Amino acid sequence: MSADQDPKFSFTETSRDGHARSGIFQTPHGPVATPQFMPVGTLASVKSLDPDDLTNLGATMVLSNAYHLRLRPGDGLVRTMGGLHQFMQWHGPMLTDSGGFQVFSLEGLRTIEEDGVEFRSHLDGSLQQFTPESVMRIERNLGADVIMQFDHVVPGQSPHDLAKVAMERSIRWLERCRVEFEQLQATDLAAPTPVQALFPIVQGGIHADLRRASAQAIRGAGDWVGYGIGGLSVGEAKPDMYAMLDVVNEELPTDRPRYLMGVGFPEDLVEGVARGVDLFDCVAPTRMGRTGAFFTTTGRRSIKNAQWRTDAGPLDEECGCAACTRFSKAYIRHLFVSEEILGLRLLSLHNVHFLVALMRDARAAVQAGTFAGWSRDWLARYHSRKTAT
Amino acid sequence: MSADQDPKFSFTETSRDGHARSGIFQTPHGPVATPQFMPVGTLASVKSLDPDDLTNLGATMVLSNAYHLRLRPGDGLVRTMGGLHQFMQWHGPMLTDSGGFQVFSLEGLRTIEEDGVEFRSHLDGSLQQFTPESVMRIERNLGADVIMQFDHVVPGQSPHDLAKVAMERSIRWLERCRVEFEQLQATDLAAPTPVQALFPIVQGGIHADLRRASAQAIRGAGDWVGYGIGGLSVGEAKPDMYAMLDVVNEELPTDRPRYLMGVGFPEDLVEGVARGVDLFDCVAPTRMGRTGAFFTTTGRRSIKNAQWRTDAGPLDEECGCAACTRFSKAYIRHLFVSEEILGLRLLSLHNVHFLVALMRDARAAVQAGTFAGWSRDWLARYHSRKTAT
Repeated sequence: MSADQDPKFSFTETSRDGHARSGIFQTPHGPVATPQFMPVGTLASVKSLDPDDLTNLGATMVLSNAYHLRLRPGDGLVRTMGGLHQFMQWHGPMLTDSGGFQVFSLEGLRTIEEDGVEFRSHLDGSLQQFTPESVMRIERNLGADVIMQFDHVVPGQSPHDLAKVAMERSIRWLERCRVEFEQLQATDLAAPTPVQALFPIVQGGIHADLRRASAQAIRGAGDWVGYGIGGLSVGEAKPDMYAMLDVVNEELPTDRPRYLMGVGFPEDLVEGVARGVDLFDCVAPTRMGRTGAFFTTTGRRSIKNAQWRTDAGPLDEECGCAACTRFSKAYIRHLFVSEEILGLRLLSLHNVHFLVALMRDARAAVQAGTFAGWSRDWLARYHSRKTAT
Repeated sequence: MSADQDPKFSFTETSRDGHARSGIFQTPHGPVATPQFMPVGTLASVKSLDPDDLTNLGATMVLSNAYHLRLRPGDGLVRTMGGLHQFMQWHGPMLTDSGGFQVFSLEGLRTIEEDGVEFRSHLDGSLQQFTPESVMRIERNLGADVIMQFDHVVPGQSPHDLAKVAMERSIRWLERCRVEFEQLQATDLAAPTPVQALFPIVQGGIHADLRRASAQAIRGAGDWVGYGIGGLSVGEAKPDMYAMLDVVNEELPTDRPRYLMGVGFPEDLVEGVARGVDLFDCVAPTRMGRTGAFFTTTGRRSIKNAQWRTDAGPLDEECGCAACTRFSKAYIRHLFVSEEILGLRLLSLHNVHFLVALMRDARAAVQAGTFAGWSRDWLARYHSRKTAT
């Protein structure tokens, strides 16, 4: 479980600039240059994209979801088919979220007890149970390189008492995850990815003392390959999120990667890197792409806007993605208005590329020692349209 | 308008085997090896596919539709954007159908007169008029290499009198198309594709005398670059369609390509090649792909079938497409069941590849002088499952 104990995992910080750093996170399926954005393939497919698209746009690590895959097609089936990598033909590093966030989102459909959570499937209403142990078995069957602990997630603006209960339960569940994980790693040698890494998740809502206590308790419980930061970007104000990142940054070891879960938007990635975060994931780029929204270096736009009707330019003049190097905004707008599937695909591809390329630029800035100026300029330009219009 | 008059278009028959032949159809945007299947991009996009997918799977000529593009985004806009090739980034040969089939399908929404057809847009109910002249201007603006005449299409099983009226009107409209087309070609030199070819369309329903009369009248009206065969695969029995192809095959010149419009299914392509057809198009492969159906060498299948749940094999063992060389039926079934867009895309890609590869094999058989045996064996195998189950 420790990075030192297993050479299949390692993290090397290659440069540092303030709290921002660049590094190499080594996994059984290859290295990941950090900071890095991971596209989300919830159901073993990054929506509307092909694994070859992901390779071509420079993505190196892909995320999938234990909750969704447990329900459909079933983790047993995925294992029978050789595990997630083989099933979806993504041969690079992968991470599975435990499904804690999804299970706790099923308000009214679930019962939380110390042992675990009982819930009804959002697909067919069937009764399901997730415990720390069962989630470890599911993630074992799926076979990602990095698997997340099962945690108790609460809304972003939860009061101190509720956030404390959930944080402390997450710590207890982490220990149960660890025991089951080590047992599986020692005995279930035929699993798709025999050596995986279990990441704990720092919780504590928007309460600095809880975040600090969570990080310290997790560090006391073991020497982890990497650390998740959960329960952010779930309804709280952005300054609250950034403040929590500052706190957690002080508490986590610098020789391990930190993964900020479910984040996010371009500005959040830049702010996260500035606070020592190495890995990010979010469904935003593909979800937005399917609704017609796209990122540009000067802010977010909608392709449905009539102003693009005869616009021969690309989505973003500075973008090198497979949409921008070939197609005009006028064409992509036509595809969208006509409900052509290629429209969703091109915007999703562009948006994912945008975040992957943004992290590539952030790495370069860190390595050049210019991150502070680069990030200030980048954010000013990204937000410039709000004041301009 | 004549192939001899303009070196941008030519047709060379390279081999013949019975009535089947292979050839090279030269267009302003490059050569097309015949027999060939043309994927259909009704609205300037082959549904769910990227132009690069089409290139990679071996497609050489793509079809689009004047009726649909007239309504959305408008042929004027397409012309403003540099024409269809530039707009959709397909740089190979293209063909536009005139929209006759679509306009005449608007039962209850259209009025047919000798001058043309008045109809209401299926999108917004707005009143539109198509005449032979206006359709030529629309297709001029779109800028395909080959443009089809505006014709009067009737249902596949229309009685002799109705089929005769429509066929004779189509001949009169061909003459009006020709005059307008020649005028545009001589004066509208800034059009996206300055030199286009106008194809007439042989009509006559399932009546051999009318088909013969139509082909003869068309030949009497000019020396055309190529010939369309329309009004088939629109509800008539397959033996009737094949019989009409036999008749038309006898009447059309052998030194010009013949394009069987809206056909179709694998078996129809093989039967068409056997009767001297060179070009085909149909929305079937992409439409079927979006509903879960896929072609195999032993017949058609549905990916939704539970039997594929854990099937590690490709859609078709003998297929070299980008779906079959990477993904299992189990995975594609999962995508389909989970309503993942990649599922539609992979089946569409496979189905289009299947027809393009089928025509490649047909060309090879013609060139080898083995077409009769090859086509008999191919059809027997394709139909084998019906007797086997």
